[in-house]
Amino acid sequence: MSIKVKIINDPVYGFIRFPEPELMRIIDHPWFQRLRRIRQMGFADLVYPGASHSRLAHSLGACHLAGKAMDELNAKGIVTSKEDYLAARMAALLHDIGHGPYSHSSEHTLVGARHEVLSHLIMKRMNQEMGGILERAIGVFDRSYPVRYLHQLVSSQLDVDRMDYLNRDSFYTGVSEGVIGYDRILQMLTVQNNELMVEEKGVQSVEKFIIARRLMYWQVYLHKTVLGSEMLLVNILKRAKEICRNGGKLFATPSLAYFLQQDLTEQDFLKDPGHLDRYCELDDADVTSAIKVWQQHEDSVLAELCKMLVLRRLYKVSFVTDHVEEQLAERKEKARKQRGFSDDEMRYFVFAGKTSNNTYNVKDELIQIAMKNGEVRNITEIEYTLVNQTIAGAVHKNYICYIQ
Amino acid sequence: MSIKVKIINDPVYGFIRFPEPELMRIIDHPWFQRLRRIRQMGFADLVYPGASHSRLAHSLGACHLAGKAMDELNAKGIVTSKEDYLAARMAALLHDIGHGPYSHSSEHTLVGARHEVLSHLIMKRMNQEMGGILERAIGVFDRSYPVRYLHQLVSSQLDVDRMDYLNRDSFYTGVSEGVIGYDRILQMLTVQNNELMVEEKGVQSVEKFIIARRLMYWQVYLHKTVLGSEMLLVNILKRAKEICRNGGKLFATPSLAYFLQQDLTEQDFLKDPGHLDRYCELDDADVTSAIKVWQQHEDSVLAELCKMLVLRRLYKVSFVTDHVEEQLAERKEKARKQRGFSDDEMRYFVFAGKTSNNTYNVKDELIQIAMKNGEVRNITEIEYTLVNQTIAGAVHKNYICYIQ
Amino acid sequence: MSIKVKIINDPVYGFIRFPEPELMRIIDHPWFQRLRRIRQMGFADLVYPGASHSRLAHSLGACHLAGKAMDELNAKGIVTSKEDYLAARMAALLHDIGHGPYSHSSEHTLVGARHEVLSHLIMKRMNQEMGGILERAIGVFDRSYPVRYLHQLVSSQLDVDRMDYLNRDSFYTGVSEGVIGYDRILQMLTVQNNELMVEEKGVQSVEKFIIARRLMYWQVYLHKTVLGSEMLLVNILKRAKEICRNGGKLFATPSLAYFLQQDLTEQDFLKDPGHLDRYCELDDADVTSAIKVWQQHEDSVLAELCKMLVLRRLYKVSFVTDHVEEQLAERKEKARKQRGFSDDEMRYFVFAGKTSNNTYNVKDELIQIAMKNGEVRNITEIEYTLVNQTIAGAVHKNYICYIQ
Amino acid sequence: MSIKVKIINDPVYGFIRFPEPELMRIIDHPWFQRLRRIRQMGFADLVYPGASHSRLAHSLGACHLAGKAMDELNAKGIVTSKEDYLAARMAALLHDIGHGPYSHSSEHTLVGARHEVLSHLIMKRMNQEMGGILERAIGVFDRSYPVRYLHQLVSSQLDVDRMDYLNRDSFYTGVSEGVIGYDRILQMLTVQNNELMVEEKGVQSVEKFIIARRLMYWQVYLHKTVLGSEMLLVNILKRAKEICRNGGKLFATPSLAYFLQQDLTEQDFLKDPGHLDRYCELDDADVTSAIKVWQQHEDSVLAELCKMLVLRRLYKVSFVTDHVEEQLAERKEKARKQRGFSDDEMRYFVFAGKTSNNTYNVKDELIQIAMKNGEVRNITEIEYTLVNQTIAGAVHKNYICYIQ
Repeated sequence: MSIKVKIINDPVYGFIRFPEPELMRIIDHPWFQRLRRIRQMGFADLVYPGASHSRLAHSLGACHLAGKAMDELNAKGIVTSKEDYLAARMAALLHDIGHGPYSHSSEHTLVGARHEVLSHLIMKRMNQEMGGILERAIGVFDRSYPVRYLHQLVSSQLDVDRMDYLNRDSFYTGVSEGVIGYDRILQMLTVQNNELMVEEKGVQSVEKFIIARRLMYWQVYLHKTVLGSEMLLVNILKRAKEICRNGGKLFATPSLAYFLQQDLTEQDFLKDPGHLDRYCELDDADVTSAIKVWQQHEDSVLAELCKMLVLRRLYKVSFVTDHVEEQLAERKEKARKQRGFSDDEMRYFVFAGKTSNNTYNVKDELIQIAMKNGEVRNITEIEYTLVNQTIAGAVHKNYICYIQ
Repeated sequence: MSIKVKIINDPVYGFIRFPEPELMRIIDHPWFQRLRRIRQMGFADLVYPGASHSRLAHSLGACHLAGKAMDELNAKGIVTSKEDYLAARMAALLHDIGHGPYSHSSEHTLVGARHEVLSHLIMKRMNQEMGGILERAIGVFDRSYPVRYLHQLVSSQLDVDRMDYLNRDSFYTGVSEGVIGYDRILQMLTVQNNELMVEEKGVQSVEKFIIARRLMYWQVYLHKTVLGSEMLLVNILKRAKEICRNGGKLFATPSLAYFLQQDLTEQDFLKDPGHLDRYCELDDADVTSAIKVWQQHEDSVLAELCKMLVLRRLYKVSFVTDHVEEQLAERKEKARKQRGFSDDEMRYFVFAGKTSNNTYNVKDELIQIAMKNGEVRNITEIEYTLVNQTIAGAVHKNYICYIQ
Repeated sequence: MSIKVKIINDPVYGFIRFPEPELMRIIDHPWFQRLRRIRQMGFADLVYPGASHSRLAHSLGACHLAGKAMDELNAKGIVTSKEDYLAARMAALLHDIGHGPYSHSSEHTLVGARHEVLSHLIMKRMNQEMGGILERAIGVFDRSYPVRYLHQLVSSQLDVDRMDYLNRDSFYTGVSEGVIGYDRILQMLTVQNNELMVEEKGVQSVEKFIIARRLMYWQVYLHKTVLGSEMLLVNILKRAKEICRNGGKLFATPSLAYFLQQDLTEQDFLKDPGHLDRYCELDDADVTSAIKVWQQHEDSVLAELCKMLVLRRLYKVSFVTDHVEEQLAERKEKARKQRGFSDDEMRYFVFAGKTSNNTYNVKDELIQIAMKNGEVRNITEIEYTLVNQTIAGAVHKNYICYIQ
Repeated sequence: MSIKVKIINDPVYGFIRFPEPELMRIIDHPWFQRLRRIRQMGFADLVYPGASHSRLAHSLGACHLAGKAMDELNAKGIVTSKEDYLAARMAALLHDIGHGPYSHSSEHTLVGARHEVLSHLIMKRMNQEMGGILERAIGVFDRSYPVRYLHQLVSSQLDVDRMDYLNRDSFYTGVSEGVIGYDRILQMLTVQNNELMVEEKGVQSVEKFIIARRLMYWQVYLHKTVLGSEMLLVNILKRAKEICRNGGKLFATPSLAYFLQQDLTEQDFLKDPGHLDRYCELDDADVTSAIKVWQQHEDSVLAELCKMLVLRRLYKVSFVTDHVEEQLAERKEKARKQRGFSDDEMRYFVFAGKTSNNTYNVKDELIQIAMKNGEVRNITEIEYTLVNQTIAGAVHKNYICYIQ
């Protein structure tokens, strides 16, 4: 993957090419290489042992699809300039650059800033370093670039990000039902009034895409064990920070220690660029190695949580539809009797939460269909469509995590 | 993967089943779960970004294939008892249990014991813990069990280990040419005189298996970049140990520190079981997190080597067929001029080595073919066979690692 | 595929096994072998050139899936006897035995009897010939056998017939979006009160199955070109019969001539077994070879229709939502002017029709879900389900076929 | 597949595109559409039920690969003109246009001319009809076009013909071991001195290609049952011609009758273009429908042979290494006793033959490797190569066909 090697063997798409030297410079950058050490699916490998792929592989894949999409548009006579082509590919390549260790789990506990904000900051810094070659890509990412459909290609409800991760996560988990016919979808893309849309005859492919996404949510992303292990990591990081705040000592790499010892906000990142430098040193290995060591920590809550994660003795998770409070109280009472937890301890071992699955968000930017008769319709407005109000609305589920 | 969940989704084989409670107890053991945090292919993901799969996934796969192989034998009337069936599956499941972080790279530098010896020791310890349920599996592993072909199924030149790793590594690297028709090979297996062999009509499938293996060696396992990154890790661990030996300080998890601070031998592991306990705490994360921190170490050689690995600025590797010494001297001279290395430094940045590829080792236990006429022949003795002396002998290659 | 060869290489499932000698006798029967010369998808290869697979391959596949389904039920403790196992596999193997050349197109024009009725008659005849070994299979087929879920396995809205053809047609057309996760569905099957149902956690897989079916309908089975070529064949056979009825002469194999020269009904088949013998001589080759010769027939309508099919100058097909009569009249007027058709000719070149797609028929036997709480629900009654009234009802489409 | 539809769904490669109107005109030509009714693998579906694909699908595939190959060459700076690009694609599309019903089986019995000669004649006729647009493609086909490597791309030991049929036949038979990494091979192609060659680093992929070919030969193309059914068809056609020559009557389509009633030579085809017109009406359906009817023919030899083929009671085939004559005499003696065959009959039911497999023909145009050091070597001259004298020479096998 040095400057000379422009062809990468991707198990999902076969050979993928990166002829643009600008993209190779980005790929070779330490901040991009960091994504190699951050898993795409966090702890999902506790359920799906094959799911160990990295954010780097996903980012390369999204970039590849962005190129394919624009090849299709060009073949249809929708001319995209060389600059736009590069900008969209670059934005796709970089769209996840701001993710931290174990992605979502560390975002609000350890780091204190959303990954989108960090992605934006990182791109800007790389842009300065590299003499402005990311300018357009940043515009595509933050919508300031006038060619609007490029943003939609990279970030919308039918973007190359989703297309790649559904395919890739299906491939690596072995949940073949998440596989989508991405080549057909790409082929059906079109642009009208500077907006990305799908040709009418592609409606069924879009439906299948939304269904596949829904299926992956319930079967993989919100799988109880996956959910339980994410909550476990969140609680480990919360407890570790608490211990630090109270003056306790913890084994940690210097970069991890930096974030354990202070509570940063997005404002802090904007003000002091030093935070970002430290952030870009962090990856999954910092967290994993620490958790292994913390199994022996003198704080029994932290030690216990870490053992649970390492030894795969995870929370039990129950989805509950009503009487959440009562059921939670019951679980707590039971745990109190059996384990003698104090209230302080209890919040780490028995608690309730809420998760949701937005298969297709009717409040977000909608997937638009270019009808044969010239109209433009939202996918949920098509006659006979599957994607109707029933599934379009978000599904919220309450759950209780507990131990036995 | 708790006791109840007996079906695992494997991207290579689809659903695979583990109905035996004994196997589930082993899978749930912390020492087996440790394999989840050890990559099957080490740093090969620097070349093949998809190749991030774990030794745990490979071990489950090998166990699955062992069961399939015995199903085929049973279908042919070669009766295997329930005990033998379990023993072979268990031995396949555990055959890699002794691997350390980044497998081969750490074996002789960090740990000081071969992984086969450690596997054997770990199985014995688990056997004690678990009331003797591994007894037969250990016999299959170390050849002390009388049903000889079970050992061959688990460890020979045509075993379920190779079958799984060729398929799995092909799948995850995207090098589709390593894919083998494992189901056809399994179907052609037979047993005569207590020896595993292949029916004559399966000769071409065995040939294809050997060819695929050969191809994976040159294209993947001995790929220059993979080789270069392995040598880099070996040198990092060597240098780190040197620093410790000389009283230097190094950031490390307690488990890693334990092995950096002493030079153990296999004898030591046999004498003091405490070493094994510490060993079973180690995985890739200990090494990766340390290397990241060591980039800032005061020893400039260690710091430089670690930066090279993290930032993917690897050794250049040249295969050389003759005049190795002259070429090495030349490279050293060049490096001395450009970088001003001392002799101490030089051995970490410019050096020669030798690697070899045994596609099919004529000195090892041979793949036997049960001919239709009743004879038993070695694969290389079949008329018109591909696998002849030319490729059967090991191919040794000299290489020079250097920096530019 | 002789008695000895019990393993068949299927491109969709890999090796599939037929260990039962009863099944091998059926497979070797000339009436089953006839299915080798009848294509599963008729003229769909005019659109999807890869879709040339035979009904024989589909029948073997359905039989294979029936076995897999019962293996799953057995693994769950739902004991199926050896006899039931064989009966279900046999019924699946034979479910399409009554199909004629180009299947549905010839059913009502050439033959005069529904394929289900013919299948039943053929099974009975084979049963007599083979000493009663099809007894139970016939019972499974016609619901007279008391183990009711076996019939549902072979013929219902979630049967092995649909599972195989969706997968196989997807495979051969290259429309990957029709692929279904059949192994997961099979794994979710269960039986309660002698009824086949799906465990609650399998709901999403069933949804995906229904969606895939819907997609295949619109994209493949009811594709305009496929529809147009079917109507063309129907009209060719209608015209050929007309010519015969009026004493005209036509090139035909003796078997084809037999059916061109008389108008049989199902009653006729029941009364005179000789009809069935002649029927079982027919396959695609009789029809294809005749149509090629008829291109030179003196009847200009027949000759023109045959040329259109052979040279792939098919009807144009328009789906029309309203004003069908007006639009039809318009097309006719245009054709009259350009081609000077008489009224007799016109009905062969410009006409209207209606087609429908029952993705999931709420009036048919419903797919039942075994809920965790013990209830049994219909799939459309599940909360948050996709398969609701909107798509459950049949979609009817009017179309106009015409030439230009 | 009309002029407008330029994208075809191919199950092997996914969507393949035909943007060139010249190619669409050829695809729409009746003589090309005829290939839709000729199976690529003849009677191989008697062994591999999935193998029902047509020569049309293969021809489209070869054309697709020719385009991909030239894209790779262009990406390497080996400029190919638009005209050359089209010429090579067109030559690949048309390379099999001269194949008759059941390909090789009918060539020397029914028709009397080699398919290559007929392909050439057909191309020339189409060229006249179409105003000279095939000029260059014909030159590529018959080597008269100066850009020599284009011919090698379309017809050599490493051409797009072989690449497509190996892949396609593997796909449809389910013999996954024939799958080749065609994209890697295409990527390794290069041109030096107007000759097509493979870059040194592609040697292993070429090896794998040759091995896959060898495997497909023994496992599929020369499978005993396939061989036996081909000999059966050859004998049926021979006998039918004999009957005609002796004034007997036979059911046949007019086109088939034309070739049964006379013995043409290649000279005849060159002299009288009318022969070619009749030839282009023939396809598998003429032969299949006739054979079905001939089962009832008064000539008992013809009737018996036809029944054997239709009912799948094929010849037995034994490969014999020595004492061929003795073994043949033995088989004949046995048949004489059991069946009372006359000598005339005997030659149709018991006979010997010879078949051969040229995995890689050292006498043919060789696969050339462009070494890194600038040399050009033949693949068998590479150090450590698999493809050596042992396998490079053709393997001849004697066989005896007989009935029991």
